[in-house]
Amino acid sequence: MNIVISGLGIIGGSFAKALKKYTDHYITGLNRSPKPLNDALECGAIDEIGTPDSLKKADLLILGTFPQAAVEFVEKNAHLIPQNCIVADTSGIKSEICPRMTELSKQYGFTFVGCHPMAGKEKNGFSASDADLFCGASCILIPGSASFEAVDKVAKLADKIGFGQIVYSTPEEHDRMIAFTSQLPHAIACSYVLSPVCKKHKGFSAGSYRDVSRVAHINEKLWTELFMENKQPLIEEMDILINNLNDIKNALQTGDRDELEKLLAKSRQVKEGLGE
Amino acid sequence: MNIVISGLGIIGGSFAKALKKYTDHYITGLNRSPKPLNDALECGAIDEIGTPDSLKKADLLILGTFPQAAVEFVEKNAHLIPQNCIVADTSGIKSEICPRMTELSKQYGFTFVGCHPMAGKEKNGFSASDADLFCGASCILIPGSASFEAVDKVAKLADKIGFGQIVYSTPEEHDRMIAFTSQLPHAIACSYVLSPVCKKHKGFSAGSYRDVSRVAHINEKLWTELFMENKQPLIEEMDILINNLNDIKNALQTGDRDELEKLLAKSRQVKEGLGE
Repeated sequence: MNIVISGLGIIGGSFAKALKKYTDHYITGLNRSPKPLNDALECGAIDEIGTPDSLKKADLLILGTFPQAAVEFVEKNAHLIPQNCIVADTSGIKSEICPRMTELSKQYGFTFVGCHPMAGKEKNGFSASDADLFCGASCILIPGSASFEAVDKVAKLADKIGFGQIVYSTPEEHDRMIAFTSQLPHAIACSYVLSPVCKKHKGFSAGSYRDVSRVAHINEKLWTELFMENKQPLIEEMDILINNLNDIKNALQTGDRDELEKLLAKSRQVKEGLGE
Repeated sequence: MNIVISGLGIIGGSFAKALKKYTDHYITGLNRSPKPLNDALECGAIDEIGTPDSLKKADLLILGTFPQAAVEFVEKNAHLIPQNCIVADTSGIKSEICPRMTELSKQYGFTFVGCHPMAGKEKNGFSASDADLFCGASCILIPGSASFEAVDKVAKLADKIGFGQIVYSTPEEHDRMIAFTSQLPHAIACSYVLSPVCKKHKGFSAGSYRDVSRVAHINEKLWTELFMENKQPLIEEMDILINNLNDIKNALQTGDRDELEKLLAKSRQVKEGLGE
């Protein structure tokens, strides 16, 4: 296949590296700024630095950019995308992206498959990309109106480059789950490190601090976009969390040991029930 | 030295294993139930299963039990502890423990050094103990009224069994910091996994979920005690966190992108400022 990757940040770059490591497909890179393109060409992550015209021969287009930038890229270049081409985004939000992409796909004839690789790091950019970033990770696919054949092609490719499982979902279910599994932990981490005590943590901290604060090393532009475009599910999850924190706080304040122990036991049971 | 360890759970057991691995001291184990003692003797983590009378020849007594149980053990057995013996607890709270222990030490003549090894796992018991649990971890010491010589002896031993750094503190500073670095993350993890969505997370989650939920696999009896005995600092930290979460939520609700981006950037800067 001729695969074009637009946006060689950590995700697009990791797709490029993984595809070169695990498959024989021909990879063309597109990027707003030249440095990641040159770096990618030099280290063999792409075969060629492309132009929008490269899209004309693409069998698969992977969008590695931020959600809105991905939509804008397709809006601008849809007329160059062949009808037999599959377009896959990599956005962390779907309800705001998939309907518009499906609309464009119907208008121009290509196939759109929503895709969210559940992998990342607290670092960004092509320099943080890694051929094995996806190893064992979950790849969420939003088939929407795509044919079984097209979705299966993306799934098989995901499997080949190391993903551990493929999960099929809808934009709504995806966004509801991601609000909890990904966005809420980022909101927690950012809220956590703003305690005035944080700056003095060294020597007094261990794994608990490290784990809960890790993703506070955040790309604020990307996550502002992700949070804003998944506002309702995230607000709902934040409310649930704040209520649960208040339950613990109230048990503390009233000195109700039994209630506190019961709350903590409930949490342990959830983790145990999940085999974690 | 003759070292007696009372309580062979994950912490006491790890001290036993580390002492046998990295030093030549003679280790005697005490425990309420016999199984950890037999396991420890069998795997060479202790040289002998002791009785309270073993305390009579102890140079160092390490208390691996829960905080209140540690105090009760010393109250009950103080008359057996020699005057030249150093007693070190391993509790995660200090304001409730150190003053009483210091009182007992003055009454009976032994030396008390507060100690909090900043290491642990989300599993408990002797079976989870590990000779290298403390490798690179921070060992917080609360010298209180102990002599320099006694504190230094404990510090040198901590260094020898793998701790990466020794931090000296007061009960108040310790408890204030630990509320943030350790107890708050546990309260967060427990609050987090109680979202009704949690049980369906598989396939939709990655590192963020794993990290923030890890310590929800909690020992509710131990942590109820730790939370209750550090009530005020923990409530203070919970209030700060909830306020910060509400700031993010308000920015979301009012659609204030600039404010949200500013909040997230502030968090990133804290992490970067710490070199993390």
